[in-house]
Formats: sequence, C-alpha cells, structure tokens
Amino acid sequence: MSDVSAPLLALFSDFGVGGPYVGQVMAAWAAAAPAIPKIELFSGAPAFDVEAGAHLLFAYSRTLPEGSVVEAVVDPGVGGPRAAVVVRADGLWFCGPDNGLFGVVVGRAQSCAAWRVEWRPEVLSQTFHGRDLFAPVAAHIAREGAPPQPCAATDPQRLIGDVSDPAARVILVDGFGNLVTGIPSFMVEHRCKIGIAGSRVGFAPRFGECPPGTPFWYENANGLIEIAVNRGSAAKHFDACAGTSVRVIT
Amino acid sequence: MSDVSAPLLALFSDFGVGGPYVGQVMAAWAAAAPAIPKIELFSGAPAFDVEAGAHLLFAYSRTLPEGSVVEAVVDPGVGGPRAAVVVRADGLWFCGPDNGLFGVVVGRAQSCAAWRVEWRPEVLSQTFHGRDLFAPVAAHIAREGAPPQPCAATDPQRLIGDVSDPAARVILVDGFGNLVTGIPSFMVEHRCKIGIAGSRVGFAPRFGECPPGTPFWYENANGLIEIAVNRGSAAKHFDACAGTSVRVIT
Amino acid sequence: MSDVSAPLLALFSDFGVGGPYVGQVMAAWAAAAPAIPKIELFSGAPAFDVEAGAHLLFAYSRTLPEGSVVEAVVDPGVGGPRAAVVVRADGLWFCGPDNGLFGVVVGRAQSCAAWRVEWRPEVLSQTFHGRDLFAPVAAHIAREGAPPQPCAATDPQRLIGDVSDPAARVILVDGFGNLVTGIPSFMVEHRCKIGIAGSRVGFAPRFGECPPGTPFWYENANGLIEIAVNRGSAAKHFDACAGTSVRVIT
Repeated sequence: MSDVSAPLLALFSDFGVGGPYVGQVMAAWAAAAPAIPKIELFSGAPAFDVEAGAHLLFAYSRTLPEGSVVEAVVDPGVGGPRAAVVVRADGLWFCGPDNGLFGVVVGRAQSCAAWRVEWRPEVLSQTFHGRDLFAPVAAHIAREGAPPQPCAATDPQRLIGDVSDPAARVILVDGFGNLVTGIPSFMVEHRCKIGIAGSRVGFAPRFGECPPGTPFWYENANGLIEIAVNRGSAAKHFDACAGTSVRVIT
Repeated sequence: MSDVSAPLLALFSDFGVGGPYVGQVMAAWAAAAPAIPKIELFSGAPAFDVEAGAHLLFAYSRTLPEGSVVEAVVDPGVGGPRAAVVVRADGLWFCGPDNGLFGVVVGRAQSCAAWRVEWRPEVLSQTFHGRDLFAPVAAHIAREGAPPQPCAATDPQRLIGDVSDPAARVILVDGFGNLVTGIPSFMVEHRCKIGIAGSRVGFAPRFGECPPGTPFWYENANGLIEIAVNRGSAAKHFDACAGTSVRVIT
Repeated sequence: MSDVSAPLLALFSDFGVGGPYVGQVMAAWAAAAPAIPKIELFSGAPAFDVEAGAHLLFAYSRTLPEGSVVEAVVDPGVGGPRAAVVVRADGLWFCGPDNGLFGVVVGRAQSCAAWRVEWRPEVLSQTFHGRDLFAPVAAHIAREGAPPQPCAATDPQRLIGDVSDPAARVILVDGFGNLVTGIPSFMVEHRCKIGIAGSRVGFAPRFGECPPGTPFWYENANGLIEIAVNRGSAAKHFDACAGTSVRVIT
C-alpha cells in the first residue's frame, strides 16, 4: 500500500457533540481555507477541564499527518485576559488559549516553539474565540505555514501552567463507559494493578481475554491506561466520572 | 491575512446528533454535488419546535459565506400537505418545508425572494424529505445557482407563518447548560434584567467577570440573549429547558 | 437536474457520537486517501450488538453511490481471533470484522464476493482496529478499487454467521424515540399489526395522519418497519429499547 499524507485542519474542544459550536468553526474554516481537509477530531473533552483536555489533546493528535493544524479549545476563561497562542511541536501546529491546554504537548515534545498571537479579527465576539479568533488563526497557519502577524515568539515551557503529567485520575468516560486515565501506559508495567474506587484492577491485553462483566486495565490505542469492563460499562461498575482518582499499585 | 470564501452546503435540522439522518443527507449531497464543501451546521434544534428552529436558523447562518445553501429541516408535518420552498435572503439560499421555519430569516432580510418547488425526485419516501427532496434541491442550487424546475415564485412574506419574533423564551439549551433565548441582543440595553423562573438576572459582558456559580445574561456570539452560570449549568440552576419563558425587565 | 455521483468513504460503527473514535478514523482516512470524499454515515449503532448492526448497515448503505467503501465496525471481540474481511456486494465495498456484521448485506446481495485480509499495518493497536487496520484497508480500496495484498478470496456465505434475517426486535431507538425494527417493510402487508410490549400497533402511511400521541407503524425511509408516536416518543410510550421483541400479527 502506498503512503500518502495531507495536512489537516483538526478541531479539538469541549464544545460537546450536541452544541452548535462545531458547525460554526467548520463554516469559518470552509470560508477561510477551502482547499484544506478538515476533521472534527474530538468535541467531547470534559467541559472546563483544562488538565483532562491537555492529556486528551496530546493523545488524539499523535497520529495526525505531519503539518496538520489543531485548533484546541477548552477555555473556561474565554473573554478574560489569557492570551492566544500558537505552538509548533514535533511537526504539528496547535492554536488556542494560553491556559495550560498545551501543557502535555509542550512537556513531551522533542522540539517545540511557541508564539503569542497579537493579530485580531475585525469582529471578535466576547464569548466565541473558537470561531472568531482561533479558527482564522488555524486556517492561516494551514494555508501559509506560519502564524499570522503580528505575533511574538514566547518560551513554550511557560505554557505548561499547572497541568499535572501524569494525571492520576479519569480524564474521559467514552461512549462505551470505558475510563480513560491521564497515565501514559509506557510508565506502568503489566504486573501493576490500578486502584479505583476501593478496588484493584489487573492488566489484560485485550477485551476478549476477560469474561464479560470483569473489569481490567489495558493500554489504549492512544497510549493511555484505560479501565474497562468487557461488554459492560466501567463507569457504571465503579460509579466513576471524569475526575475520579486512580492510582498505580506497584 | 487574505480573505477567501467558498459557498457551502450546510445542514440545519432537529435530526439529533445520535440519529442516522445526518449521514444519509451527507451521502446524498456527496453523490449530487461532489465538488461543493459540506458542513453539518447544526443538528440539535429542539425536535418539532419550528419557532425555536426559525430563530436558531437565522442566528447560525449569519456567518456563512455568501452564496451558501442551507438545507433546513424541522418538519413535524413531514409527508403532510405543506409545500417545499426555496428562499434567497441577503445572499444566502435556504430550502426546506413551508411551515414557518424560514420566518425569522425572511422577516429580517433586507432583500428576499422565494419559490415553491414543484420538482420531485423519482423516488420520494413518505418520511424523509430531508434526504429525498430537500437534499437534491439544495445540491442543485449549490451547483446551478437557482432552484430546480419546475418551481414557482411566491411571496416570501407568506412564509413567516405564526413564528413570533422576538420569542421571549428559551429556544436552546447548549452542551454547557447555557440558555439561548429568542430575543436579539440589539433589542435590549445592558441595564435591563432578564426574568426567568422567578429570578432576575443582570448583564455581564463575559464569563470571567462573574464569580463561579453566579447567573448572568450576555450577548452571545450569534446575536441572541443568553443566560449562563459561570463554570456551571444555567439549565440546572433554573430547571429550564427549550420553551421556558423569559422576559425583559426594563 | 443532472445526475452525478462520486464514490465515498463511509464510516458505520457503534463508536458513539460522543466518543473520540470517529475523529481518529477520519484522520487516518484523510492521511491515506486525501482526494476521496468522506462521511460519517452512522456512529450510533447499539454497542456490541452485531445483529442490530448488520440490519442497520444494510439499511443505511443502500443509497450510497456505486463504488463507495463502507468501513463497518461493531466489534465486541476486537483483538480476538476473528478475521478482517472485505465484501463486495452489488457495487458497494465493505470492510470490517468477520463476526456476522456483514450477514444481512451478504444474504440480500444479488452478486457478492469476499476476501479475508491478511495485510497488516506496521503498527496495530490491540483495541482500535477501526483506526489501525480497517481504516487503511478501506482507504486502499477507495484508491485502488481492490483489497490490499496479501488477501485470500473466501466464500461470502460463510460471513453470515448467526445473524437472523428478519430480526423481530427493535434494532435502534432514534433521536426522536422512534423504534426501528429489523423487519423489512416489503415483507409485511399494511393490514397487519405489529405487536410490542403487549400492545398491537396499526399501520399509517405517515406521521400527519395520526393524532399526536398515537402509536403507529410505517415503512421507514430505509426499508424497515418502524414504530412511532406522532410528536411523541415511542421509546417512552412502550418503555422499549434496542432488543425489545416485536412480532407481526397477520
């Protein structure tokens, strides 16, 4: 099979799948960068949870084609004084709010650069920078290969904020009720157990090796430790949600 | 930054994000107008609520590129005797059912024309005109810049139906629990309060200026008055849903 | 209106609309087949329910343009020993797990061929074959018009598994609360009633011919018998979900 690749515009947010926000960003992109392929990478990041977003953003952007531009928005302080930033990390571009959302991307990057974006659109709403500011910035980068002017280089390490890495907690409950944690799987040996809600969960390489109804942990396809119940919901089993603490038991 | 723009095919509906209907419209469009960019503008309009849909349709289509075609479907009487119509309003095209859904678009337009579409596809299901009738009509307009023949010009004012503008009620609860109302923000001064569920809510320009947990109203990014709770859910705070009455207190 | 048509890459799955999986398949497709139009055909198939998926897959793929490629994933045994297969049925391509998911497509096809795919990507996660295996296989077929090598022709009838056709049960609850059954509408005369939850429901051709609140059955736009309540939720009315039994009363 031949290997081809095209850079994408990808949207990562806590906008929610039911909300009207994703469509408006897509419309802004379609107007500003008609020739660039566009995807809704993920819209279900836990609302207002910058730390969870930071880990999910790293996990879900790893397989994007080189040169892709990710607009990332988990922005509880929208309209406040936080800056707009652009990050280039290991061949991918990111843009969004300077609130720690790029903390894991920056902290794990082999090579990294960052800019504070001073450019502003003619019309900027108070509450939807995802459409009015970050969307045209992302489209500009996708078209031109650089952030729009004026912008100023800044120290990427400054963007890490107070995001914890690893994050010993649930950062996402997926549609099957699986519990995604903020612990990279390369950090944990298979003999370890994961503690959650007073229980200890052992490792299994895949769903089919556990009897239905049994909880286990595994390395998910995005490099994170995930707790699941074969043909069931781990969220219901443990009454867990984004924020529930977990710990590695060595 | 350069300004470019391409007309879009945009879908607005009450199909719901979980349902199988959006994908089938997209498939019909992809077959009929492969070269036109397509977006799911919004699929979460309150089911069967034509008035809410009419206000949301106006609000969410305002930022589309000129020449874009919006297929709009909130159609509780599908399969009944209501006509299929096409509207051209201030540089945008709309097509869908003649049930009042285009009432706000027509009522606010500077320039407006409308057609009753008599064209019918070879195969027309009783219950999915969004895929079988409106989708090929929208694709035709996107390709040809005119509604398909046969069609007949009609008075756009006739399409307004009994949709109220403004609509003094909640027309959408978004994914954050914010309450979107059918009251345009240009109609209300910032010193006014908004009454809801026995409470009076004051204005704040943005989320960051209210303490977490405090309700306020603001001008949302689509030109509508919206009631929110900073880092909380106004829907839970007021036990409100689409349909809850609001009023402007001068 | 002119008739044009372009083959699509279409994703059918039980990934759920809120999950992070659809975006990652779209990213993989965008990288591997940038020139092919892509749609999220349906992501809301009942989780782990292969039989429901098999019927919905047939129903929702019937209107795709000839030559389209459907990646279909309802795969409770991911990572287990089940094979990866490609099916060509009546001008459409399908790829996914060999677990019965293609049973209805194969069983109803006029002409059919199938391959067991031995090709594997360099990196294959244990739990996300939808992104790592089936996505590049689908992209390859869309680009090349044939499954990737190595692969081996296999008897398509072998893929039917133990999927029942028709399936006398609810296979999907849509966003309006309508109950989609696994019974093709061509099999049932309009004078018949459908039994569900101790009630008998009569036929009506369309929603507008029943008083609000009244249950009825009709031929849905995808060729299946569906139970609905005009301007209400049949799921609530009958306390029904995917799996609830129905029967045809002649």
